[in-house]
Amino acid sequence: MVSMQVDRLLAPKSIVVVGASARPESPGARVFAGLKRLGYEGAIYLVNPSRKELDGHPCVASIAEVPQGVDLAVLCVPKTAVQASLEECIARQVGAAVVFAAGYAEQDAEGTQEQEKLARTARDAGVALLGPNCLGFANLQARVPITMVNVAKPASDAPGIAIIAQSGAFMSSLYASMALKGIPVSSIVSVGNQAVLGVEDFMERFIDDEAISVITVFAERLGEPQRFLEIAARARARKKPIVLMHTGRSSKARDAAQSHTGALAGDDAIMRALVALEAVILADSIDELADVSALAAMFREAPTKGVGVVTNSGALRGITFDFCESMGLDVPALEPATIAKMAARLPAFAVAENPIDVTVQAIAEPDLIGTGARALLDDPNIGSAVLAVHAGKEAAEYARLAGPMLKNSRKPVAYALLGEGAPLSAELSQALRENGIPMFRSVERALGAVARLTAYGNACLRAARVADRAAKVPALAGSGTLTEYESKRWMKQLGVPVPKGELATNVEDARRIAAEIGYPVVLKAQASALAHKSDAGGVILNVGHDAALLHAWDELHANIRRAKGDLTLDGVLVETMARKGTELVIGVKRDPDWGPVMLIGLGGIWIEILKDVRLMPLDLSEDAIVEELGKLRANGVLKGARGALPADVRAVARIAAALGKAVLATPQIAEIDLNPVIVYPEGEGTIALDALIVTTTS
Amino acid sequence: MVSMQVDRLLAPKSIVVVGASARPESPGARVFAGLKRLGYEGAIYLVNPSRKELDGHPCVASIAEVPQGVDLAVLCVPKTAVQASLEECIARQVGAAVVFAAGYAEQDAEGTQEQEKLARTARDAGVALLGPNCLGFANLQARVPITMVNVAKPASDAPGIAIIAQSGAFMSSLYASMALKGIPVSSIVSVGNQAVLGVEDFMERFIDDEAISVITVFAERLGEPQRFLEIAARARARKKPIVLMHTGRSSKARDAAQSHTGALAGDDAIMRALVALEAVILADSIDELADVSALAAMFREAPTKGVGVVTNSGALRGITFDFCESMGLDVPALEPATIAKMAARLPAFAVAENPIDVTVQAIAEPDLIGTGARALLDDPNIGSAVLAVHAGKEAAEYARLAGPMLKNSRKPVAYALLGEGAPLSAELSQALRENGIPMFRSVERALGAVARLTAYGNACLRAARVADRAAKVPALAGSGTLTEYESKRWMKQLGVPVPKGELATNVEDARRIAAEIGYPVVLKAQASALAHKSDAGGVILNVGHDAALLHAWDELHANIRRAKGDLTLDGVLVETMARKGTELVIGVKRDPDWGPVMLIGLGGIWIEILKDVRLMPLDLSEDAIVEELGKLRANGVLKGARGALPADVRAVARIAAALGKAVLATPQIAEIDLNPVIVYPEGEGTIALDALIVTTTS
Repeated sequence: MVSMQVDRLLAPKSIVVVGASARPESPGARVFAGLKRLGYEGAIYLVNPSRKELDGHPCVASIAEVPQGVDLAVLCVPKTAVQASLEECIARQVGAAVVFAAGYAEQDAEGTQEQEKLARTARDAGVALLGPNCLGFANLQARVPITMVNVAKPASDAPGIAIIAQSGAFMSSLYASMALKGIPVSSIVSVGNQAVLGVEDFMERFIDDEAISVITVFAERLGEPQRFLEIAARARARKKPIVLMHTGRSSKARDAAQSHTGALAGDDAIMRALVALEAVILADSIDELADVSALAAMFREAPTKGVGVVTNSGALRGITFDFCESMGLDVPALEPATIAKMAARLPAFAVAENPIDVTVQAIAEPDLIGTGARALLDDPNIGSAVLAVHAGKEAAEYARLAGPMLKNSRKPVAYALLGEGAPLSAELSQALRENGIPMFRSVERALGAVARLTAYGNACLRAARVADRAAKVPALAGSGTLTEYESKRWMKQLGVPVPKGELATNVEDARRIAAEIGYPVVLKAQASALAHKSDAGGVILNVGHDAALLHAWDELHANIRRAKGDLTLDGVLVETMARKGTELVIGVKRDPDWGPVMLIGLGGIWIEILKDVRLMPLDLSEDAIVEELGKLRANGVLKGARGALPADVRAVARIAAALGKAVLATPQIAEIDLNPVIVYPEGEGTIALDALIVTTTS
Repeated sequence: MVSMQVDRLLAPKSIVVVGASARPESPGARVFAGLKRLGYEGAIYLVNPSRKELDGHPCVASIAEVPQGVDLAVLCVPKTAVQASLEECIARQVGAAVVFAAGYAEQDAEGTQEQEKLARTARDAGVALLGPNCLGFANLQARVPITMVNVAKPASDAPGIAIIAQSGAFMSSLYASMALKGIPVSSIVSVGNQAVLGVEDFMERFIDDEAISVITVFAERLGEPQRFLEIAARARARKKPIVLMHTGRSSKARDAAQSHTGALAGDDAIMRALVALEAVILADSIDELADVSALAAMFREAPTKGVGVVTNSGALRGITFDFCESMGLDVPALEPATIAKMAARLPAFAVAENPIDVTVQAIAEPDLIGTGARALLDDPNIGSAVLAVHAGKEAAEYARLAGPMLKNSRKPVAYALLGEGAPLSAELSQALRENGIPMFRSVERALGAVARLTAYGNACLRAARVADRAAKVPALAGSGTLTEYESKRWMKQLGVPVPKGELATNVEDARRIAAEIGYPVVLKAQASALAHKSDAGGVILNVGHDAALLHAWDELHANIRRAKGDLTLDGVLVETMARKGTELVIGVKRDPDWGPVMLIGLGGIWIEILKDVRLMPLDLSEDAIVEELGKLRANGVLKGARGALPADVRAVARIAAALGKAVLATPQIAEIDLNPVIVYPEGEGTIALDALIVTTTS
């Protein structure tokens, strides 16, 4: 219900400012001034107990005098008056509220309680509440600025960025940065303590909004990570980029976030893996967040091919190659026709290949930078163009001539200045802005933004998720910690290969099974309470013949008695010994924040020392799983290192996909561990030697 | 001889401008104007065949009319006239020359020949020649601007940065950037094609120059890598930072450098390892090169402790932790006294711990940012302070109040603006500049520069190199590719443990040796021409008793006959089987550019798949080698993973140090390969199971 009220928050037909004030720096005065400055066209009510009017607009003395059913209440009152004001507003049937006041969960336990009460009050009444401890929001296209930040009427109503930030100061800072660069911004929201409405509520609202071209999120805490992923999947399908800066990679940052917002950041590795698979663009710095947002807002089609660079600096060629290699951005060779065209224009000492170096010849022929960029954009091998020129007095002239040649390019274009030695010239900025070309004050920043946007373009191409989440899967018998033979029974039903074998409850049984499946066999003690059977001597490998089996049977039971006293076994699993191969681990767990996640890695040092695993959602396609396996550092082993044959990664993907689908359909499963899974050379499949399933009902 | 003339280049008592001109944009006019603008006090001669005077200064018609022995000739003539002009200057005994003209080795084969001729002419006459294809240099403190770049008289004669760049445009760009920020620059040099004088010549000159505080190098090509390392070692001893941006990490960049400067960049991994061990600060981007140079120039004592941050943004705490963790920069806890002091000044909702968050309270008390920074600098746990504030209108006031509190700090201080939304205010810049505090337009850039300088401070503390390079080592017998037994004989003399054993030339010999050293033994066929003895069946392991030895002897010889026909063996090495342990590889090779380098890594996948090796010079101390081993990704294995005991890394360091010292004293060794070296648990040492030495004389 609250989410339906978000529209009444963001696009209200009527607004009441509670705590309207004549003091220019007060929140009430700022909000009212902003509404007038942007030309808000709805009804405005001002509540002030001691004024008849403010700036020519009538005031009422109390909320009770405001008409019923105003869409949005803006609570510009001290914290002590917030709860009562909200309750009065609810009595007047308001749909939404903004609370600026601080001193809630971010401060202390008492504040946390007050925030919980405030949230409960709002939720119970179905009021879409933004804050507390926020700087409000502005729906710039609808001319609704409900913020203490000084926003301006947008220059055009072209689609623009939506900035969603936990920190009001960062929202303000990012907005100002975009405004200064002439990048269109459609909406800004500071979610503050997210007592009721959180980051995800606004993302969801903005995905289908044609006025929004890019969703830029700065947050320490995502309140609903799984909803975030679902929204990201929809954004990917709609090709609307989400650019996310999620602080909290370091353990110290988590502690800081906890004290700052009252909640732990989720598991960072899981977050990064899952959001990347939904094509979310993860920014590692504030500059990067701003840069890639700006570029994505100016160019709505993300490139999938590499970058072309034109420069007047020979040294930049090496820098470009180095930097692009480190960013995974291709610097493609140009078509022969492009090279020929440029070579005809350039002197012998220039370079007509990508990156094109027009050299000091640009001083004599200042159109060369634009001409080179145009040739790059016309080349089918090139997805984007960066113009990188020394920040000298000629830079403005190059831009003036290049601008019209590059105007309305669908492929992203960026103008980068080398060096910070020159203050920005107004002519330069204007020439670029008129032609829709964003400027960057360093070539690494420009190339970095292009690299991120190109990676996004390619991520959108991959259909990583399998639609069929409601597949039929066999029911899981048993609960709590399942024994190996119970776990393997289910695995076999899913199509996960396990060794031939059966549970034996007496030695004659064991001899019969061994004779049927063939020696050598392995004996494995089975009991739900026997978590570490190997440590208890409950596993005997490589039992070669009947007599050895008799001996091993006794030895195993003696071991268990010694280690575990009166533990009663369910029986002994008698299985064939599997051939050697490459050992993998496949696991599934449910992260409290991000939900179910699958882990795949090679066993031994790869996991234990190198932490070399891929994390993924459970509904990845087999193709996507194969791709993920290719990103393991151990991929060299799977490809067949040191004379070995390439491993059957397709078979690994097959069982991982089946397992993922089955777990999605079996919500009582808390955890699965297949360790080890042996993978054999291509065409020879896999076999899970051990399996453990833990369910939530015990 | 040329190097002695470098002083005549950089600090000439007299200068002749060949090609003086009245055209203001011509090189001759620019150089002359620069000399007058900076107030050069030596003698100036102008050569112009058609003018009697220029700007009131007399001209002569030809070089022949210039007095003998002028220190510096500046050749402002077209390329076609350069060679002849240089020869005429040499006839007049000039000491040094600058050649601006381009079109030499950077252009084509003909240009390369012309450059070689020019260089030969200069070298033969002992002339210190800078260029060609350069923008000259400026010794600003001596008021000698010999460049087409528009340089200004320095504001003070405080020590400053020396910028050495291959690219003239980058020299110019970096200089302008520093000038704009008020960072002192003492000298700038563009070395161009380095036909005679190269990067190293200027580094060497600047190391002992008290006017130079930091040496900043931008180069695609270091002409004399080993000399670079020697100079870097001296710079480290003198605590004069060298900041290097060396392009050419990527294979494509190497190709670009080749076409651009006519020489391949050296092996990047070796370069990075060796220069890092000499405490050279490696910058990965142009911004980073500028940032760390500026910070190092402003604060002459590099910190060794972590950073303290004071901010008015709560969100920045998480960002700081994340970023510093990724950069390896500590964010230390403050002393209780510091926390108490800040807590007393701050409201309850602020944070008095590092990073200190003064919150919006700074608006009411704008001195809080400076007060917090002062408290950080006074805390003994803190090595540097970063003030990070939102780029709003208050930022200037914070800086104005903070400046005097932080003036003359020996610990580095940086002022960082969050967000690019506000154009830089003049008041802000001035407040910082007056108090010697550098400003950064992003907190990541400020923290990045601090991180690099702190890493430098710590690198200076480590006495990595062992002084004794001329140690007595046993002579090496044999040449070409030595056999294993010959190689091991030398290893044993160096103190490198090898298995007990001897060379047997007949089976009786072998039986005697085996009986003496004890079974089980291993047999290894020995012949210089037998490079891959295992592949030829020339190694038989685990020979357990006398009868098995007889059989193995025949089998080995049969294998060799089958694989290698009439190859005559030197004999068969009979050795004890070594216990199992962790396998390492220790190798030495001579890089054509960087000289001898040692490689240590774990065997198997660690080297083959993960390329997990440490590269180091041969004269590292044992302590430093232990430290390098700790940086292997496989360090977890050496520390004792999965229940194993920690490995005897000290013993590994001992043999590596001995080996390095021995190779340094034995120049005929081209390559050494100890593979594998088994390392046992702590206190149990190592053993080299195989050894290969290749010498240059065959």
